[in-house]
Amino acid sequence: MAPNVLLHGVGAIGAIYLHLLLKAGCRVTAVCRSNYDAVKANGFTIDSVLYNTKDVHVKATDVVRSPSEAAAHGPFDFLVVTTKALPDAKTAAAIAPAVTDGKTCIVLIQNGVGIEDEYVARFPGNPLLSCAVYLPSTQISPGRIQMGNQELLEFGTFPDTAYDDSAAVKAAADSWLEITKKGGSNCVFQPNIQVQRWKKLMLNASWNPICALTLSRDVAFYLATDVAEHVVLEVMLEIVHVAQALGFSEITPEMTEKQIGNARKRIPGPGIEPSMLVDVLNGRRMEVEAIVGHPVREAKRLGVSVPRLETLYALAKALDDAIAFRKPGQSLSGDYKRV
Amino acid sequence: MAPNVLLHGVGAIGAIYLHLLLKAGCRVTAVCRSNYDAVKANGFTIDSVLYNTKDVHVKATDVVRSPSEAAAHGPFDFLVVTTKALPDAKTAAAIAPAVTDGKTCIVLIQNGVGIEDEYVARFPGNPLLSCAVYLPSTQISPGRIQMGNQELLEFGTFPDTAYDDSAAVKAAADSWLEITKKGGSNCVFQPNIQVQRWKKLMLNASWNPICALTLSRDVAFYLATDVAEHVVLEVMLEIVHVAQALGFSEITPEMTEKQIGNARKRIPGPGIEPSMLVDVLNGRRMEVEAIVGHPVREAKRLGVSVPRLETLYALAKALDDAIAFRKPGQSLSGDYKRV
Repeated sequence: MAPNVLLHGVGAIGAIYLHLLLKAGCRVTAVCRSNYDAVKANGFTIDSVLYNTKDVHVKATDVVRSPSEAAAHGPFDFLVVTTKALPDAKTAAAIAPAVTDGKTCIVLIQNGVGIEDEYVARFPGNPLLSCAVYLPSTQISPGRIQMGNQELLEFGTFPDTAYDDSAAVKAAADSWLEITKKGGSNCVFQPNIQVQRWKKLMLNASWNPICALTLSRDVAFYLATDVAEHVVLEVMLEIVHVAQALGFSEITPEMTEKQIGNARKRIPGPGIEPSMLVDVLNGRRMEVEAIVGHPVREAKRLGVSVPRLETLYALAKALDDAIAFRKPGQSLSGDYKRV
Repeated sequence: MAPNVLLHGVGAIGAIYLHLLLKAGCRVTAVCRSNYDAVKANGFTIDSVLYNTKDVHVKATDVVRSPSEAAAHGPFDFLVVTTKALPDAKTAAAIAPAVTDGKTCIVLIQNGVGIEDEYVARFPGNPLLSCAVYLPSTQISPGRIQMGNQELLEFGTFPDTAYDDSAAVKAAADSWLEITKKGGSNCVFQPNIQVQRWKKLMLNASWNPICALTLSRDVAFYLATDVAEHVVLEVMLEIVHVAQALGFSEITPEMTEKQIGNARKRIPGPGIEPSMLVDVLNGRRMEVEAIVGHPVREAKRLGVSVPRLETLYALAKALDDAIAFRKPGQSLSGDYKRV
């Protein structure tokens, strides 16, 4: 029988996997929130540089407003989370009505580190897959998606050892690989997915808060001072040091050079807008804890010095608060009303 | 004869000294820029917590638009600069038409460090006084000033040794002390004014960029994370280390505790808005180089490690660029148009 999939929080990233999972023959229910009305009426419309396609219409098998509403379309083989990893979201609790204990495999397509714990605590008997995704994609208006030139989905089990320790987890992981590849995804099984997450964090924990705090694209930050490159490199190195203290010896200082080189190559173009910059420019919450806060806490636990990352964390969280607590039309500095 | 004074760039700070210098019996010409029309017509109106006064009207002897226009009212005994210390302003060149070589004493009432060099280079034969001012004051509309509960004007000669080495400089400094005190200023001669500037920098180089980058008052930043206090303390300590490397042994690590204590005491009130936060909320340029950039360059020259200050510098300068280069109505991230 065709796998029955629930996509929770279908925005830019979710829409691409909706497209691929439908192509793989899955039955897919989409939980849409801010874009519900548009998607319910017209589905998604996707332009893709990678696939060289325009105006591709994509309609989920069912479109619902919440996991509770989705439950009628279950039981689900996979429940794929593509929302932002925000602590206040309490996503594990939110999806519970659509999770069949011991059966539904939960797939997290989210940035950051330390994001799996709430799912393990809530669903100890369910297979859990953790993914690092490289997929530049934007929802320019409700249901309208522009996808860039890359789609790479690295995934593994949580914890890593579960693949070998549990036949049910192994079966779920193998099935996820099979259906995503069948749909055309560049999906790769990673026995050490946490290493991949920390590798991606080198990029995310540096450029994301830096661009959000400066309201600048990466190239603009790079060109503003003669110390910018050194600052970015040092932040990346701090992530390397924490990763190595965690035992991830595959993550090396040399990797930072390649990452900074990618930014250098974008000069003198416009550069890129990391997700946190897009969030702050749109007055939305940023994934500060998953991307910056968790590594800072890990560094403290492990006794690793991360002065720059800690500074970025304190700054980014305060900016996130300023956005969250301001009144509409009020200066962001008016946030003292919250005390 | 009454001293003839030119005030260059009369905003919130300048208006208070205009008031005090007039009370001292000086003839005062005011160079007003954005507030010219209002001040020319109505003068300044000052409310003061310190003086417990409301609606005090203050009219300069003459109001002009530029130092060139001011020249007709010269020669000047004192030329007081109360503009922001921005590198692009080229203030030394701008005031030249109103400076009488070898006579006019130039008084800098500005934040930051390293600000005196352009004046020494341009006017090597003129007395130069450098001031650290503690005067919470805001121009809430053109010509309308709200002053807080403090006015402290610490000043010295530049260089410090000029007071003893030059009879003309000593005479100018003594005269400045006399007239400001006569006007009611809490003015104090400091033989080592650079020490006072670096002491003030402990406060300015930390809270100014931190609040500007987070769009938050000090209290909001303090409450946003449990690492905030540590971050602020460490930034202040980096300033202490640079100051000590410069030979300013009067500036000690213990001083940082008192400074952070002042912020702690403001909880749970609204906290304060440092000038850079006010600037960024109003889309104006910030004094990044004088307050953060110069100490970072001094640290590099002296081999002092300042990772957090360097990070704040790179961030604040990029934010300042984002503000400067954006098009009206355009997202701040649209700054790539400048390349």
